[in-house]
Amino acid sequence: MLHDLFLPEIQHALDLAGIFVFATAGALLAVRKNFDVFGIAVLALATALGGGLFRDLVIGAVPPAAFGELSFFLTPLIAAAIVFFLHPEVQRINRAINIFDAAGLGLFCVTGTTKAYEYGLGLTASAALGVVTAVGGGVLRDVLANEVPSLLRDREMYAVPAMVGASMVAVFIGLGVLNPMTSGFAVATAFVLRLLAIRYHLRAPLAWNRRSSVAEEP
Amino acid sequence: MLHDLFLPEIQHALDLAGIFVFATAGALLAVRKNFDVFGIAVLALATALGGGLFRDLVIGAVPPAAFGELSFFLTPLIAAAIVFFLHPEVQRINRAINIFDAAGLGLFCVTGTTKAYEYGLGLTASAALGVVTAVGGGVLRDVLANEVPSLLRDREMYAVPAMVGASMVAVFIGLGVLNPMTSGFAVATAFVLRLLAIRYHLRAPLAWNRRSSVAEEP
Amino acid sequence: MLHDLFLPEIQHALDLAGIFVFATAGALLAVRKNFDVFGIAVLALATALGGGLFRDLVIGAVPPAAFGELSFFLTPLIAAAIVFFLHPEVQRINRAINIFDAAGLGLFCVTGTTKAYEYGLGLTASAALGVVTAVGGGVLRDVLANEVPSLLRDREMYAVPAMVGASMVAVFIGLGVLNPMTSGFAVATAFVLRLLAIRYHLRAPLAWNRRSSVAEEP
Repeated sequence: MLHDLFLPEIQHALDLAGIFVFATAGALLAVRKNFDVFGIAVLALATALGGGLFRDLVIGAVPPAAFGELSFFLTPLIAAAIVFFLHPEVQRINRAINIFDAAGLGLFCVTGTTKAYEYGLGLTASAALGVVTAVGGGVLRDVLANEVPSLLRDREMYAVPAMVGASMVAVFIGLGVLNPMTSGFAVATAFVLRLLAIRYHLRAPLAWNRRSSVAEEP
Repeated sequence: MLHDLFLPEIQHALDLAGIFVFATAGALLAVRKNFDVFGIAVLALATALGGGLFRDLVIGAVPPAAFGELSFFLTPLIAAAIVFFLHPEVQRINRAINIFDAAGLGLFCVTGTTKAYEYGLGLTASAALGVVTAVGGGVLRDVLANEVPSLLRDREMYAVPAMVGASMVAVFIGLGVLNPMTSGFAVATAFVLRLLAIRYHLRAPLAWNRRSSVAEEP
Repeated sequence: MLHDLFLPEIQHALDLAGIFVFATAGALLAVRKNFDVFGIAVLALATALGGGLFRDLVIGAVPPAAFGELSFFLTPLIAAAIVFFLHPEVQRINRAINIFDAAGLGLFCVTGTTKAYEYGLGLTASAALGVVTAVGGGVLRDVLANEVPSLLRDREMYAVPAMVGASMVAVFIGLGVLNPMTSGFAVATAFVLRLLAIRYHLRAPLAWNRRSSVAEEP
């Protein structure tokens, strides 16, 4: 690691918040699919830790934080336990979940990009890995649940806020102005973009000249 | 590696036994799905080596044993060849498969936890990685076969024996009493628990207040 | 890395060609599944880089070339953009795609085996990893698209040319005669074998005594 671009305590607190909300989203999908209590815990863990685990394997940060930090492992289990008992209430507050998830997305794309750069990756590669950190857990969750990843299917522009946030961090590093304030600005931008995409139902385009009503070809 | 907690020859023999039975289970699923001879070999390899491969990547033991030990690579191919020719007979001895699979589960959770600790992980992380070592190959098998992992779906408490065995190893290490005898005791406990879960159809609970007859929500 | 068995510039150019054709295949599957523009880009990247990424993680070459080489990251995006606008024309030239894909398969199995050996793996393990390098991206593509990997299902002997090419490289290394000419011979052999398998509809056998018409068992 070259140097810490963040205050460690702040980054840790924000990481835990992101892990918690992603774990909640994973546990709720497990309830919806009628998985048992272990399936709920597994999906909570995979959703919350999958993106960071992949990032750490790629940059050679072994053991990955998911296995090195006890709090990273326990937080998803707490989220799973809450969903196990309170899932009807949690589903009702779906809007709150979306807000937390957007916050997690904004945070993970920024911390993921920062950590990748600290381990020596180039700026473009760091931004790409930041995006993967932010969206990877959700992809792993959907693959394990045997669904087409919502990242690929939903056309909800889930990736765009992460791409914007990660790119901003890369530009700030390139300009030598990355600090807690500019980082927070990148987190906030990704967060707000995600909320706007949900609020205004922004949709990504299908392939040129392709009608969305066309059924899947054989 | 700090030190070997096991006699290497014993661990190697037990690893090969676990690899063989897991490979057999993977090959049988491939036959059931009408995969060709290469699909049978791929699923046998993935089931037998997937859990250990993930463990070795996480602890930084590269190249992983799956690619470093020739016998680890050839054993699943032998199992695949046997299933290819004898699959009706092998399916008839399904009960024997269950017994061998339970033995593999018990063994892999113990050796996985031990190896993770030898590479410097904490006790809780080592136990968690031991569980992943034991169940990871089966999850990879099901993902490749495009099925919901039976770990998530079956409610058969497959994970519980692995969690008990891995936790026992962590406690033994913490108490400074891990040796071949206590390790064997952990293997046997996980093995017997798994057989009891099969015998008495123990089932894990769904989410609180959720009727199992409810169809998947949209 | 022990030493380079290839001229770096040649290997880089061939890698880019293989990445481009694999990315095209991934992007076309995304169009067929009605994924949006981001799904097309993700599937192009995963197909083109997945095999090499897995290889680099296994041999401990971090950060993997997929995140270290900017051109490896941009090439799939260019392929995705071309498919996005021109997919009807690209599908019409399906035969050309097959030819390029066969070239990619031949190349990746040879460069994958070579790189694995350069990082210290044994000959058998290097050949196995070369095969995984060649077929891994396609498997990841199919898993992400929630389909049974065509490697397992199609019975098209896709793996066989890669196995032959990788084995030839291992033999050449063992004999001390690996050089650009023998490497090119291995690439060409795998390439031609793949084209012959397509041309003559060679099919791999199902399990012994299993009727291919039998439906999947419960």
